[in-house]
Amino acid sequence: MSNIIVQKFGGTSVADTQRIKNVARIVVNEKEQGNDVVVVVSAMGHTTDYLVKMAYELNPNPSGRELDMLLSTGECVSIALLTMAIQALGHKAVSFNAAQVGIFTENVHTKARIIDIKTDKLKKNLSEGKIIVIAGFQGITEDGEITTLGRGGSDTSAVALAGALNAQRCDIYTDVDGVYTTDPRVVPTASKLDSVSYEEMLELAHAGANVLHPRSVETAKQYCVPLRVRSSFKTSDMGTLIIGVENMEINKPVAGVASDLSQVRIVVCDIPDTPGEAATLFGSLAKENISVDMIIQSYARKISNTNDIAFTINKTDLPKAKTILESVKEKLNAGDIKIDENIAKISIIGAGMIDRPGIASTMFETLASNSINIRMISTSEIKISCLIDKQDANKAVKTLHEVFNLDSGIEAEVNGTLPDV
Amino acid sequence: MSNIIVQKFGGTSVADTQRIKNVARIVVNEKEQGNDVVVVVSAMGHTTDYLVKMAYELNPNPSGRELDMLLSTGECVSIALLTMAIQALGHKAVSFNAAQVGIFTENVHTKARIIDIKTDKLKKNLSEGKIIVIAGFQGITEDGEITTLGRGGSDTSAVALAGALNAQRCDIYTDVDGVYTTDPRVVPTASKLDSVSYEEMLELAHAGANVLHPRSVETAKQYCVPLRVRSSFKTSDMGTLIIGVENMEINKPVAGVASDLSQVRIVVCDIPDTPGEAATLFGSLAKENISVDMIIQSYARKISNTNDIAFTINKTDLPKAKTILESVKEKLNAGDIKIDENIAKISIIGAGMIDRPGIASTMFETLASNSINIRMISTSEIKISCLIDKQDANKAVKTLHEVFNLDSGIEAEVNGTLPDV
Repeated sequence: MSNIIVQKFGGTSVADTQRIKNVARIVVNEKEQGNDVVVVVSAMGHTTDYLVKMAYELNPNPSGRELDMLLSTGECVSIALLTMAIQALGHKAVSFNAAQVGIFTENVHTKARIIDIKTDKLKKNLSEGKIIVIAGFQGITEDGEITTLGRGGSDTSAVALAGALNAQRCDIYTDVDGVYTTDPRVVPTASKLDSVSYEEMLELAHAGANVLHPRSVETAKQYCVPLRVRSSFKTSDMGTLIIGVENMEINKPVAGVASDLSQVRIVVCDIPDTPGEAATLFGSLAKENISVDMIIQSYARKISNTNDIAFTINKTDLPKAKTILESVKEKLNAGDIKIDENIAKISIIGAGMIDRPGIASTMFETLASNSINIRMISTSEIKISCLIDKQDANKAVKTLHEVFNLDSGIEAEVNGTLPDV
Repeated sequence: MSNIIVQKFGGTSVADTQRIKNVARIVVNEKEQGNDVVVVVSAMGHTTDYLVKMAYELNPNPSGRELDMLLSTGECVSIALLTMAIQALGHKAVSFNAAQVGIFTENVHTKARIIDIKTDKLKKNLSEGKIIVIAGFQGITEDGEITTLGRGGSDTSAVALAGALNAQRCDIYTDVDGVYTTDPRVVPTASKLDSVSYEEMLELAHAGANVLHPRSVETAKQYCVPLRVRSSFKTSDMGTLIIGVENMEINKPVAGVASDLSQVRIVVCDIPDTPGEAATLFGSLAKENISVDMIIQSYARKISNTNDIAFTINKTDLPKAKTILESVKEKLNAGDIKIDENIAKISIIGAGMIDRPGIASTMFETLASNSINIRMISTSEIKISCLIDKQDANKAVKTLHEVFNLDSGIEAEVNGTLPDV
């Protein structure tokens, strides 16, 4: 049995027939090196946006089930076309949608999680020498309902398939040529990382580096699947390998700097200082599936015996959160609710941080000496994040990138860095 | 249990979101009259053409399996969007693709025939008050392979579903408002038929009236499903009802005149007059799935002891036929093969013909007195067809339409008459 390589191509890589031909050549090249190849593809270019637009023209509140029926078609177009292109190059190939493979998910629409992947059919077809092309982003429930996996879905499909098939590697082909120390659009001299640990990649992703969705990195970590992020337009470049920290040589304490502009800061003022008030607040948000990132609770004021609680959520959850907070405010007899959208979360990430003291203070001093006000701080073992004013974001990234010696000295070629679904 | 009405909407009826909203209103109106409604839809507008174009850009000879994977997506987009539009009008609705319903076909790609339709899920959902929206044109094999039904596929899906569900009626909504005595683009005073028998409709369809594909009419006849062809843009008009001849009142011997420009005439000259030569010729064509329409074999020539055989096939089969005929020519030691594309088949159709002698001679005389040369003739119980020169086609239709008293005296509104897939 040959080694199995799973390759994933995003929407921009299959945006038109010329690009699909290019992808077919990359796939065939991998096959001709003696590997068994399983390819996962997203919908072509802006197909998904186009379909969603029509859906909302017909119904301001389309059902999740029908959205999944609609959106899952995009990937089925891509797999059929790519399979034809591979066959035109003289190789045996076959396409499968999620129902045909048996990519089983929970019975949740628009953001289902994979619970099982059948591999019998895949192994049989690989043993017959066929290249297999599978629709990413979609799944099927036990009852035959079509589901989709939500943002980062195709990456997650690819990684989960690599795990189920015990693949040697999962290559995520995209329109960027790897993971950078920071966004090259902000710092043109950002360096490409040859390798990064799952943990660092997770923090980078959570902190706003849009190369990979955290879910796919989590899945890769869980199944110990080596992930490679590389460009489908510059295949000579080996991109960035994402592996377990035990396999890495750590040279620098800080691997990267990320900035996240997608958050909004909410302060609920004057919450009476009785036990359980934080649980009521965050429980209500969790019930509506709103993730809270940074949280700060001030010390209780002696006189009024009240607390302020500040936290950040994603901007897209703000309308839902406002409704919830109004009712929580009543229930807790709290004061004003303040919302600030002009914020940025700046993070430094590195698996080497844990052994080297002084990283945090260097970060705080750097920001202070550049007159950047820190409004919230949160830390993990391999990440330090500071909430600052949005207008200071780029300056913060640039100076931190320099202070932690991440500059390559060479200006990177900047392509688009839109995340693929 | 309420009456079940199956409605089918073709590609032009769902070409954009405005038209889908219009279709949703028609569907909901039928439901609000107390009927259970099952809707079958085609792909939006020119989706199929667009997908086929990309396929051929990638592979000059795309595999049937992958074409079916590709093309079946078009209908899945339509069913999701139409379901959302129906839900926006406050009704319960659910979409199903062929795999979800269980529309089982033979294991043949791009032109599979339906062999079984499961109705449990449909009946359960109807009993819950839901409007069901089903993807036409597609099927699934026992092994879970996706198939498509070929031309006229969505009509056939609708009629077969109506049969399986024992529906009261199958309404085929299209962009024409019914079946006419002849093509209104050729004869503006053509009359719309209130009703026509399955047999007449079959002959009209075979003779080139593009309103319904013969397959769907055959299926309707087989299951005794009353079919109604009506306009999705002019719903007040009841269109044309297609029913069993036993339920019809036959007023006129000739119900319609049709012209078919899609055929090509082939003459294989000087075939030695030994038994079995016709079987070799037509057997070879049948093996490649080429349908032969009219056939004339000349009397054997006494001197050379050879025959000429003339026949017509569809133009799209010509390239394949040429290859076959070259090898047959060698095998039979035949003479020249002559091909004539400048022909038209003109037919008069009517279930009342059988009881009234003289219809055929009236047709031949009418053509002769207009100096139109008849090159081949074929007849069935309810149809007489003459092969003539293409340039005479419109003149022949007009004069026959007049001679058999089919003119309404009123000019019909002419919309497009493109057949829906």
